Amino acid sequence: MESTSLADAFDSFDETWSPRIVAALNDQHVKVARLDGAFVWHSHADADELFYVVEGALTVEYREDGDVDAVELAAGDLTVVPAGVEHRPVADGEAKVLLFEPAGTLNTGDANDDERTVSVPERL
Amino acid sequence: MESTSLADAFDSFDETWSPRIVAALNDQHVKVARLDGAFVWHSHADADELFYVVEGALTVEYREDGDVDAVELAAGDLTVVPAGVEHRPVADGEAKVLLFEPAGTLNTGDANDDERTVSVPERL
Repeated sequence: MESTSLADAFDSFDETWSPRIVAALNDQHVKVARLDGAFVWHSHADADELFYVVEGALTVEYREDGDVDAVELAAGDLTVVPAGVEHRPVADGEAKVLLFEPAGTLNTGDANDDERTVSVPERL
Repeated sequence: MESTSLADAFDSFDETWSPRIVAALNDQHVKVARLDGAFVWHSHADADELFYVVEGALTVEYREDGDVDAVELAAGDLTVVPAGVEHRPVADGEAKVLLFEPAGTLNTGDANDDERTVSVPERL
């Protein structure tokens, strides 16, 4: 068993929209990602996705009944995007974010023609 | 969709060794717990368990090949206890900890005759 420092994990890369895996358990992955700006609208058909903001701030826009709504997250806040819900993370300045989701969940979901798609995230 | 503040979650209760559920996703639970002192040795036959220290410090003792070893976690550190591994969290002073594990995982695992067993954690 080993200890993983989230600060060290974030310090190990600079790229935004490029999640790294920091822990794997129960067929789930815990990932760290640097987010900056607006991502692509997408959904994950079979995967709920948790966003936890470690540093910075994040808006998670989502579509419900055709309308766009949003959840605002400050550092220390989390939200869960249910499977199938179209969403788009938007960071005004860089945000350091922890993700919990099933192993194999694609960052761009069903919008996997986006250039920011990461098919096989690096395991730190 | 809603935002959950971890600080508010921790502020909503004082009891130690009494995890609360802050998020449910993909048949997993994210829990917050205040730990203080030494817990009971136990294992979870079918569940890996993640500990992430939000505030304070935590030692996770575990048994491997008959020997006791330990992982030391400061705030911002995480570790995963694999299914079946006997372990005992020990906090020198109060630690605020986030847990990520399958829904239904008992805090005392196979040591469920311990008085600190919480059969049905409260959902915040």
